[in-house]
Amino acid sequence: MGSISENCDDSISLAAPFRPLEPEEFRKQAHVMVDFIADYYKNIENYPVLSQVEPGYLKNRLPETAPHLPESFETILKDIKKDIVPGMTNWLSPNFFAYFPATVSSAAFVGEMLCTGFNSVGFNWLASPASTELEMVVIDWLANMLKLPKSFMFHGTGGGVIQGTTSEAILCTLIAARDGALEKIGMENVGKLVVYGSDQTHSFFQKTCKVAGIFPCNIKLIPTTREDNFSMSPIALREQIEADVADGLVPIFLCTTVGTTSTAAIDPVSEVAKVANDFNIWVHVDAAYAGSACICPEFRQYLDGIELVDSFSLSPHKWLLCFLDCCCLWLKKPHLMVKALSTNPEYLRNKRSEFDGVVDFKDWQIGTGRRFKALRLWLVMRSYGVENLKRHILSDVQMAKMFEGLVKSDPRFEIIVPRAFALVCFRLNPGKGYDDEIDKEILNKELLDLINSTGRAYMTHTKAGGIYMLRFAVGTTLTEEHHVYAAWELIKECTDASLTKTNIIE
Amino acid sequence: MGSISENCDDSISLAAPFRPLEPEEFRKQAHVMVDFIADYYKNIENYPVLSQVEPGYLKNRLPETAPHLPESFETILKDIKKDIVPGMTNWLSPNFFAYFPATVSSAAFVGEMLCTGFNSVGFNWLASPASTELEMVVIDWLANMLKLPKSFMFHGTGGGVIQGTTSEAILCTLIAARDGALEKIGMENVGKLVVYGSDQTHSFFQKTCKVAGIFPCNIKLIPTTREDNFSMSPIALREQIEADVADGLVPIFLCTTVGTTSTAAIDPVSEVAKVANDFNIWVHVDAAYAGSACICPEFRQYLDGIELVDSFSLSPHKWLLCFLDCCCLWLKKPHLMVKALSTNPEYLRNKRSEFDGVVDFKDWQIGTGRRFKALRLWLVMRSYGVENLKRHILSDVQMAKMFEGLVKSDPRFEIIVPRAFALVCFRLNPGKGYDDEIDKEILNKELLDLINSTGRAYMTHTKAGGIYMLRFAVGTTLTEEHHVYAAWELIKECTDASLTKTNIIE
Repeated sequence: MGSISENCDDSISLAAPFRPLEPEEFRKQAHVMVDFIADYYKNIENYPVLSQVEPGYLKNRLPETAPHLPESFETILKDIKKDIVPGMTNWLSPNFFAYFPATVSSAAFVGEMLCTGFNSVGFNWLASPASTELEMVVIDWLANMLKLPKSFMFHGTGGGVIQGTTSEAILCTLIAARDGALEKIGMENVGKLVVYGSDQTHSFFQKTCKVAGIFPCNIKLIPTTREDNFSMSPIALREQIEADVADGLVPIFLCTTVGTTSTAAIDPVSEVAKVANDFNIWVHVDAAYAGSACICPEFRQYLDGIELVDSFSLSPHKWLLCFLDCCCLWLKKPHLMVKALSTNPEYLRNKRSEFDGVVDFKDWQIGTGRRFKALRLWLVMRSYGVENLKRHILSDVQMAKMFEGLVKSDPRFEIIVPRAFALVCFRLNPGKGYDDEIDKEILNKELLDLINSTGRAYMTHTKAGGIYMLRFAVGTTLTEEHHVYAAWELIKECTDASLTKTNIIE
Repeated sequence: MGSISENCDDSISLAAPFRPLEPEEFRKQAHVMVDFIADYYKNIENYPVLSQVEPGYLKNRLPETAPHLPESFETILKDIKKDIVPGMTNWLSPNFFAYFPATVSSAAFVGEMLCTGFNSVGFNWLASPASTELEMVVIDWLANMLKLPKSFMFHGTGGGVIQGTTSEAILCTLIAARDGALEKIGMENVGKLVVYGSDQTHSFFQKTCKVAGIFPCNIKLIPTTREDNFSMSPIALREQIEADVADGLVPIFLCTTVGTTSTAAIDPVSEVAKVANDFNIWVHVDAAYAGSACICPEFRQYLDGIELVDSFSLSPHKWLLCFLDCCCLWLKKPHLMVKALSTNPEYLRNKRSEFDGVVDFKDWQIGTGRRFKALRLWLVMRSYGVENLKRHILSDVQMAKMFEGLVKSDPRFEIIVPRAFALVCFRLNPGKGYDDEIDKEILNKELLDLINSTGRAYMTHTKAGGIYMLRFAVGTTLTEEHHVYAAWELIKECTDASLTKTNIIE
């Protein structure tokens, strides 16, 4: 914004010009913030991992309305320390073992700074050629690292795009599959469309299907079992599809998972894709967490059969050091998605889009606006190189193996499913006095609460096959071996306390 | 990630530990990047506003695969200057007058740094109490600045959420309206659902409706006219709704706009909402661009009748200095949206969500993961105060008024619709020799291409009521009066050249 002309009839009387992006002031504040964040990382172990505040804590600390006049940066920084930091559940703490880790890096941080700094809005090629073209480059780079077939690459016959989250990626591909089917059978038959996942598929899958107008009764979740390590059975899938076809329904979409959110279960991509291919069903592989591991030869086998699927997504914000949010989606036939999602308003028309066949990423996503998302991933890949990214994955897996060994060494504990990637699912199962599942669940809930209440580690739980279990997900960027050992010591300490307390009560 | 234990059986042989978030290295790189960006801002006028590269320019400059070994930060920075910056359409250039400006500020930048730095994933309250609660606070603050009724505030009976883009905001509210209707009439009647916009409603509205499974034939766009300044006619709306009801259709949703993308046209919120209320239709007000202006008493009138609508959105990333992406959505009955979008998987269950009635923002959006989005807006409001934010809006409007005056002073030009907010829509209309619309369109297209090819300014066009016109949107953060004057001089210069060239050819 600029100064106000005094010559204009209806000029507004104001004091000195307001310049919210004065470069030297920007420089000063941003340098201060760099130090603030670097210090936060240095001291992160001093904060409780899980925030210990009570609901509503902040409302009472802040005024009800925004200030009329500016406040100094120093005042605001003080308030961040005083009011915001205590309310943080510190995802980057090395003692964070909850959910799946959201990994980060210096390279991604500076990449994100640059993305923010440019503030380019790359809805079409012309609005930001560099942003569009770099995204195409890094999507192909990562496809190469994963040894995806050329049919998924811009260098081949496919292509990909960076979405925010897996939900969006699945919504976009589902719409492509849905519209392809409706074109054949007519909109009025939307109630016949059926989609498939397993009972371990992430909960957003059902939500996404409902958003897309799939009838809830037509979202079929194939049951899994502990015996199969909660992976999808190709036989059960085929039976369900055959039954649905016999009922006059139209199967359109299968969401299969490599590394489920509960237990990191792995669906057999090749086998279920073959089943789906027999029925001409769009197959999507959601490898949000574990897909990153497949850059290592040790894990690439889990993508065997990927040439049989239609789309594939993984989230580098989970395990490739990228900060939130960054979900890469590859498609064999992007034009099917573009057809379903394209718009062509006059105010965005331009020669490049009309005559030069450029990629306009607005037609590869739900929204219109988009940031220069590729910078983070590009900086991560260049700054660390493929070799270090592989090492990073293997080191996390190694630490999880170590933790699994510790659990196994204590007869009071039980591993529920074999460790997959860097996730260990286990429970306290001390035998006599805890015979039925309800007793065991209560005991483990208490143990988990106790661990988390110390602030020294944060773990979460899940339930699969009716079994309540604790999840220990290794791999925040700052986690080292000694943190895993310390967490195990804490778990044992809290276990002793839990068991003693229960025994005394009894 | 950590070092590898040498005691483990299957340990992997690696060199020194890989530490991608070593605080001192982070500090060093981030400081360098701060200076890089500050210098970019200082020198931004030296770059062409619209990038002058050709499609495919980057593919040929970068290798086909990611490097195996790390590259130095200095090398990467050099490549950014050499390969990325030339491919930028510089949205933050003070000579950018295209689309709508995406405004920024130092305060929002440091807020974004902090959001990235924390990398908290606030899908539910527990996972990031501060992020959830600060979002509730700033949503109420902004509601207060806009004088929204208490029925839209957490402090009252409503609430709001920060989405990425308006598309997402509308998708979420549309799903709430859709599911509410389907509950009454049954899923099988989805083909009866009708939604309304005008022919000036943003193109994403149709896309969003299709994503949600609304039949394309049931997306009714009320025609507008130049005489009405392209605003929606409540009479035409009522007629269309009545006709649809008579046809046995079920009207569910109206998207009305304050400040359309083409010409910043303003639908009469109160009047169209009254019509919609008569039919129990969910009314959404999309004020992505112009909503921010309504913090000024001068513009608040355009929200008159807001108490009659169900939801309202505006994007502070457009006109409140916030960087992309930040779209605020308020609802009168958030529970209707939460009902439609909530999930409750075991691995996210916790006592706070189950017993304490906390807000879990995952149920207010399509995806699951979400960043600490409120920080940017909070820092902007505190760092500048409401008074400066108002000044900033009024100053942009003032510059647009000035530009409008300049256009009016040159008889070769014609203002197509009265300036609204900070957007001027005009065309070159020199009279003899350019009598029909096609001649005028060709002339203005040529003029626009010529202006943009200089790299000294970037403007875009639109078409409404069959008229091709140029859009001059004032207000990037760095734009000052002299930039507007310079742009006008450039336009006149290019006009002279265009007319001379055409005359010579004739």
